Amino acid sequence: MAGKYRVRTDLAMENGEKYEKDNVEISGVVIRKSYDRKKDIHTTVVKIESEYGAKLMEKPVGTYITLEAPSLVVPDEGYHREISAELAYHLKKLLPPHVDSVLVVGLGNRNITPDSLGPRVIEHIRITRHIIREYGEEALGEDGTPMISALVPGVMAQTGMDTMEILQGVISETSPDVILVVDALAARSTRRLSCTVQLTDTGICPGSGVGNHRCGLNEETLHVPVIGIGIPMVVDAGTIVHDAVSNLLETLEESEIDEFLAELVPPALHGMCVTPKDIDETVRRLSFTVSEGINQALKEV
Amino acid sequence: MAGKYRVRTDLAMENGEKYEKDNVEISGVVIRKSYDRKKDIHTTVVKIESEYGAKLMEKPVGTYITLEAPSLVVPDEGYHREISAELAYHLKKLLPPHVDSVLVVGLGNRNITPDSLGPRVIEHIRITRHIIREYGEEALGEDGTPMISALVPGVMAQTGMDTMEILQGVISETSPDVILVVDALAARSTRRLSCTVQLTDTGICPGSGVGNHRCGLNEETLHVPVIGIGIPMVVDAGTIVHDAVSNLLETLEESEIDEFLAELVPPALHGMCVTPKDIDETVRRLSFTVSEGINQALKEV
Amino acid sequence: MAGKYRVRTDLAMENGEKYEKDNVEISGVVIRKSYDRKKDIHTTVVKIESEYGAKLMEKPVGTYITLEAPSLVVPDEGYHREISAELAYHLKKLLPPHVDSVLVVGLGNRNITPDSLGPRVIEHIRITRHIIREYGEEALGEDGTPMISALVPGVMAQTGMDTMEILQGVISETSPDVILVVDALAARSTRRLSCTVQLTDTGICPGSGVGNHRCGLNEETLHVPVIGIGIPMVVDAGTIVHDAVSNLLETLEESEIDEFLAELVPPALHGMCVTPKDIDETVRRLSFTVSEGINQALKEV
Amino acid sequence: MAGKYRVRTDLAMENGEKYEKDNVEISGVVIRKSYDRKKDIHTTVVKIESEYGAKLMEKPVGTYITLEAPSLVVPDEGYHREISAELAYHLKKLLPPHVDSVLVVGLGNRNITPDSLGPRVIEHIRITRHIIREYGEEALGEDGTPMISALVPGVMAQTGMDTMEILQGVISETSPDVILVVDALAARSTRRLSCTVQLTDTGICPGSGVGNHRCGLNEETLHVPVIGIGIPMVVDAGTIVHDAVSNLLETLEESEIDEFLAELVPPALHGMCVTPKDIDETVRRLSFTVSEGINQALKEV
Repeated sequence: MAGKYRVRTDLAMENGEKYEKDNVEISGVVIRKSYDRKKDIHTTVVKIESEYGAKLMEKPVGTYITLEAPSLVVPDEGYHREISAELAYHLKKLLPPHVDSVLVVGLGNRNITPDSLGPRVIEHIRITRHIIREYGEEALGEDGTPMISALVPGVMAQTGMDTMEILQGVISETSPDVILVVDALAARSTRRLSCTVQLTDTGICPGSGVGNHRCGLNEETLHVPVIGIGIPMVVDAGTIVHDAVSNLLETLEESEIDEFLAELVPPALHGMCVTPKDIDETVRRLSFTVSEGINQALKEV
Repeated sequence: MAGKYRVRTDLAMENGEKYEKDNVEISGVVIRKSYDRKKDIHTTVVKIESEYGAKLMEKPVGTYITLEAPSLVVPDEGYHREISAELAYHLKKLLPPHVDSVLVVGLGNRNITPDSLGPRVIEHIRITRHIIREYGEEALGEDGTPMISALVPGVMAQTGMDTMEILQGVISETSPDVILVVDALAARSTRRLSCTVQLTDTGICPGSGVGNHRCGLNEETLHVPVIGIGIPMVVDAGTIVHDAVSNLLETLEESEIDEFLAELVPPALHGMCVTPKDIDETVRRLSFTVSEGINQALKEV
Repeated sequence: MAGKYRVRTDLAMENGEKYEKDNVEISGVVIRKSYDRKKDIHTTVVKIESEYGAKLMEKPVGTYITLEAPSLVVPDEGYHREISAELAYHLKKLLPPHVDSVLVVGLGNRNITPDSLGPRVIEHIRITRHIIREYGEEALGEDGTPMISALVPGVMAQTGMDTMEILQGVISETSPDVILVVDALAARSTRRLSCTVQLTDTGICPGSGVGNHRCGLNEETLHVPVIGIGIPMVVDAGTIVHDAVSNLLETLEESEIDEFLAELVPPALHGMCVTPKDIDETVRRLSFTVSEGINQALKEV
Repeated sequence: MAGKYRVRTDLAMENGEKYEKDNVEISGVVIRKSYDRKKDIHTTVVKIESEYGAKLMEKPVGTYITLEAPSLVVPDEGYHREISAELAYHLKKLLPPHVDSVLVVGLGNRNITPDSLGPRVIEHIRITRHIIREYGEEALGEDGTPMISALVPGVMAQTGMDTMEILQGVISETSPDVILVVDALAARSTRRLSCTVQLTDTGICPGSGVGNHRCGLNEETLHVPVIGIGIPMVVDAGTIVHDAVSNLLETLEESEIDEFLAELVPPALHGMCVTPKDIDETVRRLSFTVSEGINQALKEV
């Protein structure tokens, strides 16, 4: 995907798609797909196993699980519960063994609707750390619930601080065994908006899908395993222009296409994003689905 | 702009633009432009004077005043105040003489951010009707303030009723001399999002810029003069694809273009809209600017 | 309860309590109590059958059903569902026979938390009128669902209009068979805050429990049966002072008490109200419980 | 103020009042009052200079500045601006010399209206740290603006963590020179609700006005100077009962009064608070006034 206008996606599976289309196998990348007809969930597991694969996929080495569930866009409570259970199932497999304390972090800006998924999820997380510390585990009347704490650090324009600075401080004070980071993602395809969940053991790389691994929230930078959980809520406005014409241009040379596309995306589209019209209601609903999945996974650790 | 995919705009001036580009004069349509360099406001007054002009412009006969103020996207309080004053100036000229009572109506869905402009404007309107009825005009300590009432009727999915049904009832009970209807609009160009204000004495035609005048909120249907005030807050997602390629296709025949474009806009874009990323903050700010303009215009009636 | 400081309550059963305490039977007033131990619901049905009873009870002639469910203050979803069912059961008995269309009205100010119950309930009401009018009843796939419409008229400071004016207009346009009016109430006892539901076929008398029946929203003024549904969300701040000392003053003469109490409630308490500390969360939760009860009752009409 | 029912206040000046009433001078406590007639602001400066004074005043050693401005309850923008300026004046005097970096902390629960002052103030604070670190001070086009960062840590029920733990971590990462902590306070008198601002160099003692200094956010615990800024938003419901009767009981012995009062405050009042009816609007307005004061004070450091 060379060229001046870079189509950005946070979904590893979308980066895998262009190689699939060309029937190219990527060394160091294993992609496994399955479909549960009854639940209408497409599951894609992408394992990036080498730095070579990481470079081609433009994502760090690790495991990426994507659940595509088109019916998530509908306000069907029962279905959302099923997705929560599915999410809990995969999340438990990504958790390290013997988890005694978990920090759940909600990234994003609560005042920007499509970016508010993280902060909203935190509102429904079952917090136990202060209870266990005060009264012991028995106070919860269950076995094996870890100490769960949560934080909404805010974005840099609100705090003046790197999320990293805030998290490092809190981690050194509270020493969690694992960190879950929830964030709204960008997708390439509007088809995936608000009906796709990605879980990954590579954490979250805020602001960009590409390159600079050091700025990400991950085990390398935070010295604790970090699991990223995200749902794409926006598509860059330039992307839909790009996608719409690219099919029609298949006969052109790639370099020509790049030039053509670079001109095609007008400056007025910068700062614009594409969202479903009912984004406010959507993000409210999905924050329940995700928090329910997290609550369930952590209950049975 | 015939063809299968119809680009929709609520701005009369945008419909005027394609004729301008071709240097075509439209009989029955007078377009006057001016630019205030100091305030950086482009003002376009479109007068549609005949049914023939109305058909070409796809808007009812009447006057449309558009203020384009690019700096509106910036949170500069002083500048917003200037736009409020400008809006008040034009609004006063559209008001009928001897206004004793005004009903301000905020259309749209308060729970959908880009559609919440109308309801939010109402929150800042200075309401006087109940005070004047109870204590007389002197209670306000000023001369000439009319009785101002306001209503947020909600959208059909929330009420089960036509806005028309609700308004007709309220009008017959309270008999206002003029109705101001505030609504979020759709534009064709992302360049105009959240920095353009349209005032018109033709009211508002919810849901479509075209055709069926009978469903609109206007003097014909409500038997009271209706002034529409709107700011474009969304562009249809299909539109940006359409616009981006249309330049490149200028050499094709128009019928070819239509076919081409119809295929170009993928079904996944239906229900999608393009908005500025900071729409939540934008709509909050603009609702003050508009309500301030209305308050000022009505104070000096 | 004569005297200068009038303790205000919207709950008929609270007005009944002082007679009970004195073991006085009131001619023209029938009070029936029951307790469902399994659900922990106290039900009080007050029937005021004569104008004499109405005067003593300071409420209009009619039926008042009060459900007291202390566990409503706890966020237990299952329990809230039971109360919704109970509410639906009583509401159905108050509905007139052969209801084809219902207008649900949410009174109160959405921007004042304890007063926002009505507007919030409306957000969850299942609206059917526009669907049935467009596609017929079959579109809903069920038998017997009436046309349901809803309105949030706002309060006078927001609209400049009487709720009555707005409703009369809407009623004459849409002719509902019955009107449900939902409102936050004032109670005398903090014990009843946010865990008591009152249903009544006498409508709602906004602003006062006493006297002027003509200003109320009821069958007499709106010419359609009106059912009021309310939950006490505030206690007047003066009331808790009044209540606290009145026990201690039982030996004094009533006229002395009045004088004493009048002095006791300091002016600084005017405009103050007593609410549970978690009122924001409480009103959110209860609005679901009430709307669910209404939706259930109307589904099976 | 011995006795079973403890009237709680976060305002040092209210604790000073009972000694004043008795014309008792407290050794180690200096109280200075002044009144600005033009601005209608009463200013009280309480200096607690000894541990003996601290014990009597039930507040730590330090300076407490209280501005009482009754007109703050009115939505008069000009007046609020004056109070912001007054607040900035006093705040600057409390700041240590040579401040290069400031952390502003908004305590409280954003979802509980009367407790949301802190988080709301943060929304309007001018954040500069990330800009200065990226582009240098010149980027701001002004001299002497310090690096300003901000944090909304949330309350323990939301995070599972002590505010202290979160702050200590963030402080060790970002090393601010001074911390401003904004919080909603409890007052004893409803007269002071939402029209009184307290500034103090003793930080904030969340949850209680009394005793345990070690749990507070202050220089001793955080090793950085901490300035507390608070506005009383609630009065404990028991307090208004207590206050109302205490005048009438002046002839009784103090021990009798305590017993009497302990019985007077009924259990149903626990968890209840007294707030102005328009608390939602009030807290919105005051958060601007406070943040404006902070922004002004920090601009000219």
